[in-house]
Amino acid sequence: MNRRDLFAGAAFGLALAATPALAQDESYTIGVAIPSATHGFMGGLNYHAQASIERLEATYPQLDFVLATAGDAGKMVNDIEDMVATRNIDALVVLPFESEPLTSPVQAVKEQGVWVTVVDRGLSVPGIEDLYVAGDNPGFGRVAGEYFAETLEEGDNIVVLRGIPTTLDNERVAAFEEAIEGSGINVLDMQHGNWNRDDAFNVMQDFLSKYDDIDAVWASDDDMAVGVLEAIDQAGRNEEMWVVGGAGMKEIIARIMEGDPMLPVNVTYPPAQIATAIELTALGLVSATPVSGRFIIGSQMITPENAEQFYFPDSPF
Amino acid sequence: MNRRDLFAGAAFGLALAATPALAQDESYTIGVAIPSATHGFMGGLNYHAQASIERLEATYPQLDFVLATAGDAGKMVNDIEDMVATRNIDALVVLPFESEPLTSPVQAVKEQGVWVTVVDRGLSVPGIEDLYVAGDNPGFGRVAGEYFAETLEEGDNIVVLRGIPTTLDNERVAAFEEAIEGSGINVLDMQHGNWNRDDAFNVMQDFLSKYDDIDAVWASDDDMAVGVLEAIDQAGRNEEMWVVGGAGMKEIIARIMEGDPMLPVNVTYPPAQIATAIELTALGLVSATPVSGRFIIGSQMITPENAEQFYFPDSPF
Repeated sequence: MNRRDLFAGAAFGLALAATPALAQDESYTIGVAIPSATHGFMGGLNYHAQASIERLEATYPQLDFVLATAGDAGKMVNDIEDMVATRNIDALVVLPFESEPLTSPVQAVKEQGVWVTVVDRGLSVPGIEDLYVAGDNPGFGRVAGEYFAETLEEGDNIVVLRGIPTTLDNERVAAFEEAIEGSGINVLDMQHGNWNRDDAFNVMQDFLSKYDDIDAVWASDDDMAVGVLEAIDQAGRNEEMWVVGGAGMKEIIARIMEGDPMLPVNVTYPPAQIATAIELTALGLVSATPVSGRFIIGSQMITPENAEQFYFPDSPF
Repeated sequence: MNRRDLFAGAAFGLALAATPALAQDESYTIGVAIPSATHGFMGGLNYHAQASIERLEATYPQLDFVLATAGDAGKMVNDIEDMVATRNIDALVVLPFESEPLTSPVQAVKEQGVWVTVVDRGLSVPGIEDLYVAGDNPGFGRVAGEYFAETLEEGDNIVVLRGIPTTLDNERVAAFEEAIEGSGINVLDMQHGNWNRDDAFNVMQDFLSKYDDIDAVWASDDDMAVGVLEAIDQAGRNEEMWVVGGAGMKEIIARIMEGDPMLPVNVTYPPAQIATAIELTALGLVSATPVSGRFIIGSQMITPENAEQFYFPDSPF
């Protein structure tokens, strides 16, 4: 009986019993492979992975977890092979460090009958994973754009900082542009700040020297927002404009909670999506609930009224 | 403090504590409004709603549920208004009886700060719900089509029964046709059996009288498959062809488990999607896990090897 059969059998058993009691007789091990906490977003992701594992271990004594973090694709491949060889995992939750080098190793795991959940970055070959969990990139741009369109007046001027040139960035920006279409807002300029604080600082310094009337900035990322705010502060133009970043960095959320007029709102692209992926994978093992498919986590607007829901003081991000 | 604030505060409290203990101090009520068990699929859906509520009540003592079933849209609207007025629900899970008459009432519930999860059938206005859970209609056709393409030979003949003429049926059939493209399979005929056993029986009788060489039938639904099998049986042509239905009716799954050559496989469109919706809604209340967004449950192939995972003997469907 391979692992897939075990998995199927247990789900069946639970359905028969219609109580969680039977499932508790059978124990399962879930492997979680994620990138190391090398920068803000991944720091948050590591925090939420750990928090959801603690919650699940307390809720379901029959579940065990192996969490491995990797600073490069090679280490992640080794981690995953170890999980299968030495821990006999029933399910794998993986945020691929890079798509290409992880595709064959994850496919091999899948072929051994292990449930596979892929998070955020897809693999290079479609259809390998049982469950895909990711943020909503068009929604991320649209929610921000709708706020700009509702809040600004016709003729107001904005500048936009873009991420690293990628499909993902294109999707976000296209949805933002569509949402402000017809609002009469002038987009003075758009430049790539590459989701990087220092690059964003330089781009914003350039915008500030070129344009003497800016009403708002779509920084489109909280790391970039930090660089943008620093440039505005050095130019002494804090009263002139507000800034919308994105992804919910805790320092930014704290300022939204305080009602900072420079940071009126934010848009989620939650590092806690790893928790959604781990929770759903666990649910598939402890119950007969269908959890295969594709879950796109909505991008929500964070306002002073709801900000505390998105504030995680213990998270590094 | 309205319900939305309570909800937000609790999620925040849990994140702070990073254990489920705090959340257990706060109790929540989830309303579940679904159509009555008037036919097979809805019977299964009622069974899975009840089973997931039992599982969740046993797992999370801080959760209460109100389950209401309705035979028409007016009753469902009343049920939902009652849940808000007399049970003060924190979240609503609804499978709209019909989209149009449920849209305003559900929107009113949302505006009172109640979390809203919509299942299967969308509302007429987009963006009301926090979470949307549904099956994968293109996937339902594609998975079936891939099986036909892989199993049949060039020149083999098939007939197809379609559902009630709807966008949903069009999506399924278009994906099926795309999957068999280039396989050399001849589609002799396609007619609407309207997801109805008797209609499917009549359509299949007609096919059998018209065509003297049929290798396989895509009945595209298990209720239709039952009618199709009866027609084939009456014509005494059981040895000639196999049939693929869909949605996982338990009598069909039982025959797949037994290795019946006339029913080699099935494709899921699970009535248990209601369990996914209820579980995710509950998870959003007892933890800080992001559960807003859009979850499309994958259509999976059911084979003799994995069929027991999809067999629910206590369910009416």
